[in-house]
Amino acid sequence: MRNFQGIHPTALIGDNVTLGTNVTLGVRTIVYDNVVIGDNTVVGADCILGEPQAGIYSDPEGYRNPVLNIGSGAIIRSGTIIYAGTELGAHFECGHRVTIREGARIGHHVRIGTLSDIQGHCDIGNYVRLHSNVHIGHKSVVKDYVWIFPYVVLTNDPHPPSNTLVGVTVEEFAVIATMSVILPGVTVGSNALVGASSLVRSDVPDEAVVVGNPGKQVASIRDIKSRFDGSPVYPWCETFDRGMPWEGIGYTAWQQQLRDGQSG
Amino acid sequence: MRNFQGIHPTALIGDNVTLGTNVTLGVRTIVYDNVVIGDNTVVGADCILGEPQAGIYSDPEGYRNPVLNIGSGAIIRSGTIIYAGTELGAHFECGHRVTIREGARIGHHVRIGTLSDIQGHCDIGNYVRLHSNVHIGHKSVVKDYVWIFPYVVLTNDPHPPSNTLVGVTVEEFAVIATMSVILPGVTVGSNALVGASSLVRSDVPDEAVVVGNPGKQVASIRDIKSRFDGSPVYPWCETFDRGMPWEGIGYTAWQQQLRDGQSG
Amino acid sequence: MRNFQGIHPTALIGDNVTLGTNVTLGVRTIVYDNVVIGDNTVVGADCILGEPQAGIYSDPEGYRNPVLNIGSGAIIRSGTIIYAGTELGAHFECGHRVTIREGARIGHHVRIGTLSDIQGHCDIGNYVRLHSNVHIGHKSVVKDYVWIFPYVVLTNDPHPPSNTLVGVTVEEFAVIATMSVILPGVTVGSNALVGASSLVRSDVPDEAVVVGNPGKQVASIRDIKSRFDGSPVYPWCETFDRGMPWEGIGYTAWQQQLRDGQSG
Repeated sequence: MRNFQGIHPTALIGDNVTLGTNVTLGVRTIVYDNVVIGDNTVVGADCILGEPQAGIYSDPEGYRNPVLNIGSGAIIRSGTIIYAGTELGAHFECGHRVTIREGARIGHHVRIGTLSDIQGHCDIGNYVRLHSNVHIGHKSVVKDYVWIFPYVVLTNDPHPPSNTLVGVTVEEFAVIATMSVILPGVTVGSNALVGASSLVRSDVPDEAVVVGNPGKQVASIRDIKSRFDGSPVYPWCETFDRGMPWEGIGYTAWQQQLRDGQSG
Repeated sequence: MRNFQGIHPTALIGDNVTLGTNVTLGVRTIVYDNVVIGDNTVVGADCILGEPQAGIYSDPEGYRNPVLNIGSGAIIRSGTIIYAGTELGAHFECGHRVTIREGARIGHHVRIGTLSDIQGHCDIGNYVRLHSNVHIGHKSVVKDYVWIFPYVVLTNDPHPPSNTLVGVTVEEFAVIATMSVILPGVTVGSNALVGASSLVRSDVPDEAVVVGNPGKQVASIRDIKSRFDGSPVYPWCETFDRGMPWEGIGYTAWQQQLRDGQSG
Repeated sequence: MRNFQGIHPTALIGDNVTLGTNVTLGVRTIVYDNVVIGDNTVVGADCILGEPQAGIYSDPEGYRNPVLNIGSGAIIRSGTIIYAGTELGAHFECGHRVTIREGARIGHHVRIGTLSDIQGHCDIGNYVRLHSNVHIGHKSVVKDYVWIFPYVVLTNDPHPPSNTLVGVTVEEFAVIATMSVILPGVTVGSNALVGASSLVRSDVPDEAVVVGNPGKQVASIRDIKSRFDGSPVYPWCETFDRGMPWEGIGYTAWQQQLRDGQSG
């Protein structure tokens, strides 16, 4: 089966689909009407791009599929379903069987893990990392450089079931560890760290460490030392750079470059 | 690809399959032997209906597939797998990649979200709402108008691993918020509310609010006021009607109609 | 559609694939290059075996797929994805849409439930049981006869995000109940029992019962009595035998047989 590139003969492609140069569509992938895919994007097997919204069931004749825009340089692994009416920035990458519903606006250089469920009508910034099986509720706002680990849920209904949804906001560089739940309307502050299995009921200050059920602030991220050598670990941008724009030069130097560029 | 209706030529259909009028079977959907699908049902791409039970592996020649019955007016989204030997009532609707195993009896007007895992040998009533990624263990009983949110697990084994399973019972109108676990044999009472990330180890009284790990009763649902306007929120049937039989008229008037009809 | 056996005509098979005798490959299953499948293995529909590793995206021309070895007598249900560069022992069985990434070494007689996500670069012993939706992080070591229930996560990053991963070790016969999280570097002792929804931050002694968030030792497994008849339940190998090598004869007699065999 060699290393397949190009449009596989079993792929099904709808009307008014725009494919950039050097796009690969894997075995049996379905692209519905009105999908735009940027250059050099690779789509795996059994994906569905431009999945029709619910309106198709109530009015199958009159339904028109909204545009799905997928940026250039994306890697979309097999079994992923992305609805019509969503925007994905450049260099998107995801695992298998991800679901992204309508009305999601997703920035560039975002990675989303296997089985994650993006409910749509949400904003996800640039360089965001969602690990496997993350659940992002409607109306969530996830800003740049946020990390969210497996089985985290961003909720939105303060009085379930109701019609008054209030999203969660996660500020830049915040980290939410596995199995935590963030209740509706909560803001997780910049560079904050939410420990595993926490239930976060109220706003988390910038740089705070919150753990427990119910979640309580127990420290500042600046109190955390490496268990290996005792050195400071957070803010993580100063100790980790893989896949980040400051990779190889460090966050401080990169910031300086940005300032030099702006002033230059 | 227009708005496809009908039996897609790539669908595979087994022996003794009964399709109602105006049924749609999506791209590459597989329908195994002895499946009955009601009128006006729409099945998405890549579904498997009538998945054979485990007996086929031990006796592939002698195995006969039990009947799967799917009611009329269902919407079954792509990637869903429903086993042989299950019953789904009318107006069923589900998200993507749902799994429903054998011996599940599911009422009418039920909605089940993406990736939910119904283990089978369980009873689910009418107008039940399961959000994404809900896990319903064997022997669970979920009654009418129950709402269960993402990553909730209804367990069944008091001494894992053992052969003495004891299911959970969730009474009418109860609500279980995200990431909660209900331990084996527990009954969650009518109109009760289990908060997010709770571990429920003992029976929950009707109309009780239980939160925490371990879960404790902290209030009555009648104590909860809207965070927006301070008005009562629960019982939710009095403040929410979308998709419910009292939609547009209110629960009280609907109940009155039922009484009038019975006496009329 | 009869009870299908053999290689389905819609299956796609790559180069240098070795199939044992009496192998079934289901509808539309994809087998990439350099996969070895043992005798009498049954692979369901829509599976992907030998999924290429990430290197294919950076060097599609030069990439060569590592070997995936699947032992004899396996049952792999539909939608499962197993990466190249992994080893599965004989009599493996899994549910639907399981993901197993590269560098996983999995023993014999292992069962893995629907939607479980094995991140790869991990060791899983013999007769291990993972229920639905279990997440095994990189560098985890799960020894023989371990049981792990739904939504459990074995983590690995003590300072997320970082490059210094430290896996969890789960010793023989340990049981981890649903929705529990084991933090990086923790060892769960032999025959220990971690209760549902626990957050385990430190090593669990052999035969200890740990529950809560944070998890605390509350008992020995020998203190637990059956809720049905008051008899001891643990160590579970003495009260449960389904699918185990001591099935029908009991653990003690089986151990005696092993000793007799060794000395005979």
